[in-house]
Amino acid sequence: MSIIVSLPAADKTDWWCQMLRDLMPDWNIYPLGKEPDPEAIQYSVVWRPATGAMTPYRNLKAIVSLGAGIDHVLADEKLPEDVPIIRTVGTDLTQRMKEYIALHVLRHHRQLPKIQANQTAHKWEQIVVPPATERRVGIMGLGNLGGAAAELLASIGFQVVGWSRSPKEIPGIRTYAGASEFGAFLEGTEILVCLLPLTESTRGILNADTFNRLKRGAAVINAARGQHLVDSDLIDALASGQIEGATLDVFHTEPLPKDHPFWDHPAITVTPHVASLIDAPTGSKIVAKNIRTFHETGTVADIADAKRGY
Amino acid sequence: MSIIVSLPAADKTDWWCQMLRDLMPDWNIYPLGKEPDPEAIQYSVVWRPATGAMTPYRNLKAIVSLGAGIDHVLADEKLPEDVPIIRTVGTDLTQRMKEYIALHVLRHHRQLPKIQANQTAHKWEQIVVPPATERRVGIMGLGNLGGAAAELLASIGFQVVGWSRSPKEIPGIRTYAGASEFGAFLEGTEILVCLLPLTESTRGILNADTFNRLKRGAAVINAARGQHLVDSDLIDALASGQIEGATLDVFHTEPLPKDHPFWDHPAITVTPHVASLIDAPTGSKIVAKNIRTFHETGTVADIADAKRGY
Repeated sequence: MSIIVSLPAADKTDWWCQMLRDLMPDWNIYPLGKEPDPEAIQYSVVWRPATGAMTPYRNLKAIVSLGAGIDHVLADEKLPEDVPIIRTVGTDLTQRMKEYIALHVLRHHRQLPKIQANQTAHKWEQIVVPPATERRVGIMGLGNLGGAAAELLASIGFQVVGWSRSPKEIPGIRTYAGASEFGAFLEGTEILVCLLPLTESTRGILNADTFNRLKRGAAVINAARGQHLVDSDLIDALASGQIEGATLDVFHTEPLPKDHPFWDHPAITVTPHVASLIDAPTGSKIVAKNIRTFHETGTVADIADAKRGY
Repeated sequence: MSIIVSLPAADKTDWWCQMLRDLMPDWNIYPLGKEPDPEAIQYSVVWRPATGAMTPYRNLKAIVSLGAGIDHVLADEKLPEDVPIIRTVGTDLTQRMKEYIALHVLRHHRQLPKIQANQTAHKWEQIVVPPATERRVGIMGLGNLGGAAAELLASIGFQVVGWSRSPKEIPGIRTYAGASEFGAFLEGTEILVCLLPLTESTRGILNADTFNRLKRGAAVINAARGQHLVDSDLIDALASGQIEGATLDVFHTEPLPKDHPFWDHPAITVTPHVASLIDAPTGSKIVAKNIRTFHETGTVADIADAKRGY
């Protein structure tokens, strides 16, 4: 029973291999390419695998995505067809995302960026903001992560609305579904949070048209994928004042290139893809459990739908 | 039926007078000193009244504090004795305080100050922090505000402990009481939040001895009164690394003087007493209701205990 592991950074690949070996002592676990016999490999554990990286492993039973999304796996044009993809989700990862979303929604709601700019200027200015009960927050994407974030924001007191591809019901939250209800969802929203899966229909959804439907001076938080955002449309919307501020955790290229204009933009907060970081000690427990369950039963709850894209 | 209003800034006094006149058209409402007959004044509505400011009003039935605390009223050495003091508390004010505490606890928990410093340096560094479920947050003061903040932090997932003068019970929160349990409360706490009333026994409670009992690298948030903190002890604890960061909403002198070292300290976040801002539109409704209730019944729920100090 053999597994290969592949992350972009070699030291992280080694860290994950070690964690999985501790949890699965009866399995052989190798960094990708270091296995003695590719045909003996049954599972691969991957984050952003290179194009064609899976091709040598002709007896793969499943591919484990080290994330809630599978877009980074599907991006491989040579991906073997009909190999199931297992997502990595868990209470710890949901917890971390909830924290991130609550933090950054509250930060924009309470105008902390402006208060911090005033501190730099030694300026004492008591800005009055409404309570959260009068602030509309819109969550795009109502899966494990979006649903949990929506519930926490509602418990803090925000007016929360949610939007997803297919209709969802979440207690205390007004939900909208599909393209036909997207405009109604955006109208009046002051803080927009993107937690969508990346698919052909959601790529570039954070664009000028979307921004223009929000309340003027809105904030945007993207903790999904960099490809959801049209970067230049955000820069333009910030320049016009239609958008007042943005917090971005994900980018078209990661790490964000040193010379990217987002780093120095005064209205953009850059966080380095840490909203729901899957570290090896936490994530390896989820991965080991999912591989064992799949190996014994032939399926697992977190299996993705490759045709749908998430 | 006549009321005088006194705030340090004349324009704010006028704003409050106007709001109260709209809500209480059958009452005479004057800025302090502008009333035709001091002996006709039955109520005063005050924030930080000057020493002796209440002396001319010999027929006062009650003094309304424009805040949850009454320390700023009791600070008047010439305050008439035996005039009841009515606190201003309400769901909006509790809501605002909850938001502020959740924001700043999450900000320290998720190391946002360090992430923002990295942004300035164009540095992509994925700092791994534990989930909130492994982070101990200690709340000092479990009144309306502290109790509500503790409950929200627990619902976000934090390990919340609370400390107060007399024993309190809050579901899901481990509580400690009195001087004898203060050490046990502080031990292992990584984020300390002060929401205590200011009394002779709490003045200067945020001092070197308290900081040294926290877990090394802890954060401190003070949203109570500036006099709870020994400023120089905080500066020293930040220099030694015992405390990693602090968020301060209140200060010995407000507005914080332009040359105060807190403004430029890289590990201190200064907010201008906005945690639970009582703006006139929100607060005047609470004040009008409390004065009417007191006037009709001789008492009201939010009456303070001047001997106890809160």
